[in-house]
Amino acid sequence: MLRRNIETLEVTFMPQSEPIAVQKHRVVIVGGGFGGLFAAQALGRSGYDVTLLDKRNFHLFQPLLYQVATGTLTVGDISTQQRVVLRKYANVRTLLGTVYDIDVDRQIVYYEGGEAPYDTLIAATGVKHQYFGNDHWREHAPGLKTVEHALEMRHRLFRAFEEAEKTSDPALRRQLLTFVIVGGGPTGVELAGALGDLTQRVMVGNFRQIDPRDARVILVEGADNILPPYDNSLRDAAKRMLEELNVEVRTQAMADDITAEAVRLRHKNGETETIETRNVLWAAGVTLSQFGRTLAARTQGETDPRGRLVVDEQLRMPSHPNIHVIGDLACAPDGKGGSLPGLAPVAMQQGRYVAKLLKRQAKGKPPKPFKYLDKGSMAIIARYRCVGEIFGWKVKGAFAWLVWSLVHIASLIEPDQRMTVTIQWLSRFFGTSADRLITGNPPKTADIQAKHQVKLPSSK
Amino acid sequence: MLRRNIETLEVTFMPQSEPIAVQKHRVVIVGGGFGGLFAAQALGRSGYDVTLLDKRNFHLFQPLLYQVATGTLTVGDISTQQRVVLRKYANVRTLLGTVYDIDVDRQIVYYEGGEAPYDTLIAATGVKHQYFGNDHWREHAPGLKTVEHALEMRHRLFRAFEEAEKTSDPALRRQLLTFVIVGGGPTGVELAGALGDLTQRVMVGNFRQIDPRDARVILVEGADNILPPYDNSLRDAAKRMLEELNVEVRTQAMADDITAEAVRLRHKNGETETIETRNVLWAAGVTLSQFGRTLAARTQGETDPRGRLVVDEQLRMPSHPNIHVIGDLACAPDGKGGSLPGLAPVAMQQGRYVAKLLKRQAKGKPPKPFKYLDKGSMAIIARYRCVGEIFGWKVKGAFAWLVWSLVHIASLIEPDQRMTVTIQWLSRFFGTSADRLITGNPPKTADIQAKHQVKLPSSK
Repeated sequence: MLRRNIETLEVTFMPQSEPIAVQKHRVVIVGGGFGGLFAAQALGRSGYDVTLLDKRNFHLFQPLLYQVATGTLTVGDISTQQRVVLRKYANVRTLLGTVYDIDVDRQIVYYEGGEAPYDTLIAATGVKHQYFGNDHWREHAPGLKTVEHALEMRHRLFRAFEEAEKTSDPALRRQLLTFVIVGGGPTGVELAGALGDLTQRVMVGNFRQIDPRDARVILVEGADNILPPYDNSLRDAAKRMLEELNVEVRTQAMADDITAEAVRLRHKNGETETIETRNVLWAAGVTLSQFGRTLAARTQGETDPRGRLVVDEQLRMPSHPNIHVIGDLACAPDGKGGSLPGLAPVAMQQGRYVAKLLKRQAKGKPPKPFKYLDKGSMAIIARYRCVGEIFGWKVKGAFAWLVWSLVHIASLIEPDQRMTVTIQWLSRFFGTSADRLITGNPPKTADIQAKHQVKLPSSK
Repeated sequence: MLRRNIETLEVTFMPQSEPIAVQKHRVVIVGGGFGGLFAAQALGRSGYDVTLLDKRNFHLFQPLLYQVATGTLTVGDISTQQRVVLRKYANVRTLLGTVYDIDVDRQIVYYEGGEAPYDTLIAATGVKHQYFGNDHWREHAPGLKTVEHALEMRHRLFRAFEEAEKTSDPALRRQLLTFVIVGGGPTGVELAGALGDLTQRVMVGNFRQIDPRDARVILVEGADNILPPYDNSLRDAAKRMLEELNVEVRTQAMADDITAEAVRLRHKNGETETIETRNVLWAAGVTLSQFGRTLAARTQGETDPRGRLVVDEQLRMPSHPNIHVIGDLACAPDGKGGSLPGLAPVAMQQGRYVAKLLKRQAKGKPPKPFKYLDKGSMAIIARYRCVGEIFGWKVKGAFAWLVWSLVHIASLIEPDQRMTVTIQWLSRFFGTSADRLITGNPPKTADIQAKHQVKLPSSK
């Protein structure tokens, strides 16, 4: 707060800072995720004329999305309107609109409903799922990038238990109670752990015909180990924790085909295996957002093998230095010859960095390169079960879980969200709180009647 | 708790009560709203074999639904899985399934996925909207009976503000910022008050091009006064409170036509008036649920002019004494020659009453007629603004609002919901907490590009 006030004074009120020239510089930010929103916040009261464009009217705390999908948190807990976060900054405008094109010569971004000219552009539209050329898998294997994905996953998971409770067909019940998660990165591991916790503890006793403990949860990973970026000892610990929750971990196996009723795995040794299941969850590949693709095409910008836009150490496109790319969309140098991973803390720091860079520019100071401060990362597997590294220090178990919880809660943007999420978590552990609702219109009774050819005498 | 334990002892363990005969009696409850869920709970550990059938896997606290529609509460706050509420009662089974028919002679209820034979049936499927024969109004004027309705209303309301912020067309902006609520009963009044509060206080300062205070909120009621069941002094107070929030109250006016861009009102004096608006909210007519219609047809049961099933003072259908009808679906005698209104407390008390009646039957005790204990009712208009009656005592203003809040929170079913709802409310008044998200998949960028004929060079 103090720092923000000082900046305001310097830029806006101190006569020697020439605020008029600064105020005319237009910054357009496309995408209001971690990168874009943190950039917009850090540019608040800076004297820049800032426009944040997003196709959604809210910021999503994506690292907790799996908790919505598995019924612990409710959507409102992990989402905030960008407009509300930014309401204090008169120089920042928030617009809801899908950006569909860009003219890099005339420096204009086109969005549904208007156009936004820019002097500096910050592109932060992130990534979306991909199914490695098998787009028809999508309908059987929902992913987890948006709120709608999380709700679809939640509906499927809890509907499967409801159907299993109703059916008298043991083969169908078996399929309904088999859950296959494709992808052993953090999202897949966290989903598998949450499902293990649900079936082994949370939902026990809620049913009369089935026992949730009979459910099979299978985690599939193509590499030799789950959680590829982690240290070996942590990966082993994670695997052990998952197995304690009855999760079967299959490494060196890839999804080869996915249908409504089964998934076929191909093992590294060439053998295939078919698992009958009604529930496949996708936590594997990602690809560039459509705006990312458009930007790459319009700038002829260089992309890395994963399709990300290559930027320099100031996060600028080399061909267009007034275009910054941040977050998952960027392939930014990590200073060790590689590139930075697509993580929320990277995006946040990059957003703040670009804002600082612009403020330095305005004051005529020389630029500094972006440096990522790796505070560590963690994968939560279930209550009290967690592995991770904090400033290079390996942690696991209940203590790590506690740190993880505090770190996550502290990084929620709105103060009262921190409070509700804390309470939701506490009540998760000590009570019954949950959002396991199957929403989306259920079938209409009249339609079911038509299907069963029920005829009613005409009403009086 | 004490009473429940005593009952359990009496019915299940005392040798003279012949538990075996009692245990075979099958009670099927159709509908898990206030009536059905309270009946199921009260039959927990009773020795009856109870099945609760619902097409949704959750109970909805409908009186607070307008707070979801207007962005104060999030869906998870006001919904509870019936399965979780009833988990402790081994004699109660919960099934997710749409009931589509009933054979009253063979005593079987048919649901999607199976059939449930019953000795006693409790019908509690409530009511749904109707548009007085103008079903095409539905698409322009969403109602407020289900979670999906509330979300649709929320998306429309907040999208209207976003579009108004974007547009440069003053006529369109005017239409977008005009909100017409049809129906001046409690739901309509509460919606109008919540919108008045949003536009006059909550959202002020969130926009750059528009001032939410310029929005028009118009409440339309066909009768001479809003809140028809209330006393005159309370109706006047409610009207005054609404007007303080800039809500225009139009009585003696009916919706005559509704399109995407306007609503035409017909005043009692025959004059018509057209209001240009993109936002019409429906809080007017209701009609029988489809299962209610089916039950009426299959029993040839008598219905009242509003289509509700007429029951006796034990809430039984006269032609079929083993079928009880409760809640909004029932036209039950109020003991003064009239019938009871469709209110949550009526449904709750009726649910508990039928359970008690069955337990008395099991013990061979004579039945007692249902008596509704009217503890009062209240309509909340905004923060600190509220009118109502408590045990016949007229109240209004901040004190009434406080009582209302406590009563509502106390009647939420799960203890940790009470806590989160309290916090949500507190943070609503002192902070920024809200769920004003526009969810549901936004348009795909690729689709918008196609619309604007954006062509990208083929990717590398």
